[in-house]
Amino acid sequence: MSIVTLLTDFGTRDEYVGAMKGVILSINPSATIVDITHHLDPQDITGAAYLVQSCYRYFPPGAIHLAVVDPGVGSDRKMLALASGGHVFLAPDNGLLSLVLKKGPVDALRYIDDARLFLPSVSRTFHGRDIFAPVAAHLSLGLGIEETGKPAHLSSLVLLDLPVPRKSDKGELVCEIVTVDRFGNLVTNLDEETLQRFRGDREAGKIQVRISHRTITGLADTYSAVRGGDPLATIGSRGYLEIAVSAGDARDFFMADRGDRVYVTVAA
Amino acid sequence: MSIVTLLTDFGTRDEYVGAMKGVILSINPSATIVDITHHLDPQDITGAAYLVQSCYRYFPPGAIHLAVVDPGVGSDRKMLALASGGHVFLAPDNGLLSLVLKKGPVDALRYIDDARLFLPSVSRTFHGRDIFAPVAAHLSLGLGIEETGKPAHLSSLVLLDLPVPRKSDKGELVCEIVTVDRFGNLVTNLDEETLQRFRGDREAGKIQVRISHRTITGLADTYSAVRGGDPLATIGSRGYLEIAVSAGDARDFFMADRGDRVYVTVAA
Amino acid sequence: MSIVTLLTDFGTRDEYVGAMKGVILSINPSATIVDITHHLDPQDITGAAYLVQSCYRYFPPGAIHLAVVDPGVGSDRKMLALASGGHVFLAPDNGLLSLVLKKGPVDALRYIDDARLFLPSVSRTFHGRDIFAPVAAHLSLGLGIEETGKPAHLSSLVLLDLPVPRKSDKGELVCEIVTVDRFGNLVTNLDEETLQRFRGDREAGKIQVRISHRTITGLADTYSAVRGGDPLATIGSRGYLEIAVSAGDARDFFMADRGDRVYVTVAA
Repeated sequence: MSIVTLLTDFGTRDEYVGAMKGVILSINPSATIVDITHHLDPQDITGAAYLVQSCYRYFPPGAIHLAVVDPGVGSDRKMLALASGGHVFLAPDNGLLSLVLKKGPVDALRYIDDARLFLPSVSRTFHGRDIFAPVAAHLSLGLGIEETGKPAHLSSLVLLDLPVPRKSDKGELVCEIVTVDRFGNLVTNLDEETLQRFRGDREAGKIQVRISHRTITGLADTYSAVRGGDPLATIGSRGYLEIAVSAGDARDFFMADRGDRVYVTVAA
Repeated sequence: MSIVTLLTDFGTRDEYVGAMKGVILSINPSATIVDITHHLDPQDITGAAYLVQSCYRYFPPGAIHLAVVDPGVGSDRKMLALASGGHVFLAPDNGLLSLVLKKGPVDALRYIDDARLFLPSVSRTFHGRDIFAPVAAHLSLGLGIEETGKPAHLSSLVLLDLPVPRKSDKGELVCEIVTVDRFGNLVTNLDEETLQRFRGDREAGKIQVRISHRTITGLADTYSAVRGGDPLATIGSRGYLEIAVSAGDARDFFMADRGDRVYVTVAA
Repeated sequence: MSIVTLLTDFGTRDEYVGAMKGVILSINPSATIVDITHHLDPQDITGAAYLVQSCYRYFPPGAIHLAVVDPGVGSDRKMLALASGGHVFLAPDNGLLSLVLKKGPVDALRYIDDARLFLPSVSRTFHGRDIFAPVAAHLSLGLGIEETGKPAHLSSLVLLDLPVPRKSDKGELVCEIVTVDRFGNLVTNLDEETLQRFRGDREAGKIQVRISHRTITGLADTYSAVRGGDPLATIGSRGYLEIAVSAGDARDFFMADRGDRVYVTVAA
């Protein structure tokens, strides 16, 4: 097993991703390299945190997940190697792994600092190529995570303060749009389990989702359950509450974006 | 042989394509996965139909071609597995395979419905990941197409009513722009053979191609056969009549787009 | 070893790159294909020349680097196969390999003209698919470069007249922005060695970089060495002088672009 996934804000116009792949294949010519995305907004650590968490579990255990959004590259920020539930994650210690750390077990956690694993010449501005890529390649060849550097402790890490759904004074569940996907679907931070707990034994058909002064009643099963152009709420493929427009774009429809609030109630 | 090609409207900003690849590699770690494109406009089934047809024959027989543009995901729309000329195609039954079905033999045709091949938990909104990807992976491991589900009949399928070149009352050949490529080249639905039949024994140099009140005389062999900035007509690499601008962009030059008509005559 | 890298201006919306990969895998199913980029501006040979040169050395020797920006496709322009320092490069003879040829050894140089290696039917408009891809695949299977065609001589090749840093009458080092990356960093043609030679034994902290009527003093080690929003000069990951803005976009900040001049002096 030698899968290495890549998640960066490097884009695909420059040579950056290609150079990382060259480094990996120079060390492990049999590595299977999979692009998750390189189109995160520059320096969007929060977006990367959601993305890495939403995807890795579809890969087989043993996969190495390399995630580099790294505005502090070359400074004294640290670099992490994390083993969690059979998967390995490599990322700067800047909060990128916050959700993986919060939701998964921490089976091993190291600061990447063994320079023998790096490229012979390490730049100050591109550790994705010079440090992360060769370390990922060595791990994909069977190197133990404990060989990457000295132990790190969860309590010392940089963690993002990500919004969680909360109950308002009025009894509403207040959640937040955390991702807008390429279809314009608005993905919130409200997971299905929390929603069901909030609903309790009240009717599912009475769930009301309010966004931008508009209220959607009930959860749709599919994007085509309502007429083309009409909005709907559904549990999306990530397992989170999502607002969509059938055959349309909910971002445009609601003029909503990441960070906007969504309110959930259950009608009497 | 275990090539799986992917053609979707999922874009490359989200985790959708990565998750599909993870699913495929979890089942067949040796699969070679090739992206055709993920940048079809959302819900552009017609564009997908042209694209899948233009590309598959360059892959070796045995390749699995997975094409997911699926606005009806989770509804009662069906899913297809098609064997044609040594290739296997998987797609929603929404017309996406219209051109492959029209131009190639139908060696086997099944509705994908054997849930044992799916992910254990199937969402209502992402069958690319939960159904198509695992089925493709099993096929790439040697599963027979007849194992994917019950037989389907061509006459029951959803087929697109795609435009075909037709002769007008004035004796012109009326064709249509069906794709505009990234260079701005305008690709029509007029294949070389139909054009030659229309021309008969008249001189090739007298072919006239009319678009947006402008007439181009003769077919160029190459994009650089005319001066930079000048328009030309040629038989493009798909084997279809194409209007281009040398070192320029024909979409901008003619302010033309998909769906616009192109008229072909042969001067006396 | 059978790595084939791809560098084109084909974009990723059409079937062009997928068709090339299908051709390669039809000939060598074990080839590892790596995309460098397909997002060069259409016909941007100069951009391709910089990109191919900045990336290949991170791949293991034996890799085949296929670079196709080819406005003259189908005309009498020639096609090249170059062996240099253990790497093989395939490209049109239009200047694309200028920097590789200038900086590396020329171990073998051939015109690609043995039609037995091409697809059976060669279009006039897509040699990437019909000629370059199959030749790359055959080379990746072990074909010797001398089998691709007759010898070519460096003196006959098309070479770009690329700008090099020069000393002005006032004693400034005049260099030029040759690439703007996706972060908006302005990469110049001034390599670190030339800069150090120019500086001599004067203090590094007194280097002054002037761009758009603004002067930056000293070289930063990292992008985060200055306050967010402030500009800096650094030696970037390519080994060239680069102007950046910490947590920002230098292209927007300076309203600068490719071709703009940058002046370097050392204060007394």
